[in-house]
Amino acid sequence: MSDLGVAARLSGTVRIVGAGLLGSSIGHALRAKGVDVVLTDTSPAQLRLAVDYGAGRAARDDDAPALIVVAVPPDITADVVQAELERHPDAVVTDVASVKLEPLRVLRERGVDLARYIGSHPLAGRERGGAISARADLFVGRPWVVCRDEETRPADLALVEALALDVGAMPVEMGPEEHDRSVALTSHVPQVVASLLAARLADADDGALRLAGQGVRDTTRIAASAPELWVQILGANAHPVVSILDALAADLARVSDALREPERDGARRTLAEAIRQGNEGVERLPGKHGQNRRFESFVVMIDDTAGQLGRLFGELGELGVNVEDLRLEHSPGAQFGLAEISVAPAAVRGAIEGLEARGWRIAGATNG
Amino acid sequence: MSDLGVAARLSGTVRIVGAGLLGSSIGHALRAKGVDVVLTDTSPAQLRLAVDYGAGRAARDDDAPALIVVAVPPDITADVVQAELERHPDAVVTDVASVKLEPLRVLRERGVDLARYIGSHPLAGRERGGAISARADLFVGRPWVVCRDEETRPADLALVEALALDVGAMPVEMGPEEHDRSVALTSHVPQVVASLLAARLADADDGALRLAGQGVRDTTRIAASAPELWVQILGANAHPVVSILDALAADLARVSDALREPERDGARRTLAEAIRQGNEGVERLPGKHGQNRRFESFVVMIDDTAGQLGRLFGELGELGVNVEDLRLEHSPGAQFGLAEISVAPAAVRGAIEGLEARGWRIAGATNG
Repeated sequence: MSDLGVAARLSGTVRIVGAGLLGSSIGHALRAKGVDVVLTDTSPAQLRLAVDYGAGRAARDDDAPALIVVAVPPDITADVVQAELERHPDAVVTDVASVKLEPLRVLRERGVDLARYIGSHPLAGRERGGAISARADLFVGRPWVVCRDEETRPADLALVEALALDVGAMPVEMGPEEHDRSVALTSHVPQVVASLLAARLADADDGALRLAGQGVRDTTRIAASAPELWVQILGANAHPVVSILDALAADLARVSDALREPERDGARRTLAEAIRQGNEGVERLPGKHGQNRRFESFVVMIDDTAGQLGRLFGELGELGVNVEDLRLEHSPGAQFGLAEISVAPAAVRGAIEGLEARGWRIAGATNG
Repeated sequence: MSDLGVAARLSGTVRIVGAGLLGSSIGHALRAKGVDVVLTDTSPAQLRLAVDYGAGRAARDDDAPALIVVAVPPDITADVVQAELERHPDAVVTDVASVKLEPLRVLRERGVDLARYIGSHPLAGRERGGAISARADLFVGRPWVVCRDEETRPADLALVEALALDVGAMPVEMGPEEHDRSVALTSHVPQVVASLLAARLADADDGALRLAGQGVRDTTRIAASAPELWVQILGANAHPVVSILDALAADLARVSDALREPERDGARRTLAEAIRQGNEGVERLPGKHGQNRRFESFVVMIDDTAGQLGRLFGELGELGVNVEDLRLEHSPGAQFGLAEISVAPAAVRGAIEGLEARGWRIAGATNG
């Protein structure tokens, strides 16, 4: 969104090393702001694709970048950051790797002067990668972690934060340890858990899968992610991930023991506590899905057509109902869709009565 | 849906024992079909509420029900089924408990004649319980498991399946062991995993939670469920749940070990295999979320108003685009919403170009 961007602050050439999904998306977003972007990639084909798609121009030896964005896989991030710092003695260098401590550790171990390096991490991505999947709006509304330290010059920090703002992201200052601990909890461990749970479905009976509802679908959705990248991410953030996995394993063992001896003292209390603490945790998540209690939902039965949705939301607009969240579910085997609509509790009754008066069929909210 | 119902097959009085969410919802659905429904509940207040809301009439001693539906908590299901079989020697008795083996084991242990008993389980529910949350359409499009056995008379089975059809559900015949194994995998274990993962967020730093994306929200959504009911469900299905939890714990330990010694032979392969098997599992789930590869999605930036959604879907209708799935996400801190729209791959380009031509801003699909 233009009102989020501050193009004026990003002046001079921006050099992007790595023309994959993140690098090319940053290129597209900056080009849209009129910023001069030069790209490079170890793969000539990938680079040509990114340039052809308008993510920037191919880098030349006489480029004099003010800011360099290293957008390469985590395991070679430190090497590339070091090379760029040495090759461009006047440029500020940042990277967008999803782990921040390991590259920093390697660079310090090598005694690299890191005065001009500021690690960062935009929390955005897609299932599909590569320059061909790049989108100028990939970062809109997403947090972009910026890891300053005591060495960081204010002007350099402003440059990296301007980069985040110019692509529509929200800069969040955080130390590398805190970043890695945080994403271990909110991204890396959920990925491991979703993958292991989904793996249990791989050789399940078809009959069992017929009973699957929205619950198991949501719990395993991110298990569709790409193995290659995740092996690197998990490997580079192993310590915080392992410590959370160990705590999870202990909790899991407590629940299993309670289920093995349900009559044992406190067994039922152990189970109830596990579910209750889960209630507490999910309520702390930001965003609509972590604030279920703020909204109430009802389900409208619709034919599976965009036209019906148009009429539905048009009439919700006429009724003055503000839709807080919505989700379309298809009942397997049934010839219609269920649109679950979340609104403020005070608006539920008016919405349901108004829609029913207009002939809509309201169904009970279903869960997995 | 009337075309799914077969009201003609459900004749005579249906007696519902337990006027909570499921019992009252069945009552509402059957009353809408013109079926004579009598209700009873150990709580006079709950019964009065259900009757006042139109779920049926209060049971009398001279009722002669053809079908009895026991809709009470799992831990007293066997007692109530036995009492109903003895009190109504001509009626077919079913129950709707979410576990099927444990009540059957208790009834057989007591030597109860089970010729007229057919256990069943509608896979539907809501976060909120009680007669006040009951909905006539709670079961529409959902599977309803019916556990026949060699004793079951065809006419009795037809009666229970007519019940399922009349409330809009899809009867699925399955043995009690298969049912309990299936729901352990598709419902009970996902609940435990989501709760334990969410519990890890309960005492997390606010800073960490700021980085939470859609991934962790989806993975933990069902952790909002009620502890009391789940203690009973898990306790009554302990054996299959524990065996899956043990397998999960072993997988978890393998991943943790691989992360502790990333350089060990096969460590990276262990991680890659865990993610890859998760890919396989999630692809086997029925419904849109298990068939991501069949659809491609793009994200439209919208103001957070029903009117905008109305215009969006109205124009998608004009463009002849059939929306296969959709999801509204609010970017924390941003002043707009992101509507992720899934369509058939062949329709993506036309939809995006058509919407952009009409002035909509298309953003890249974001994930957690």
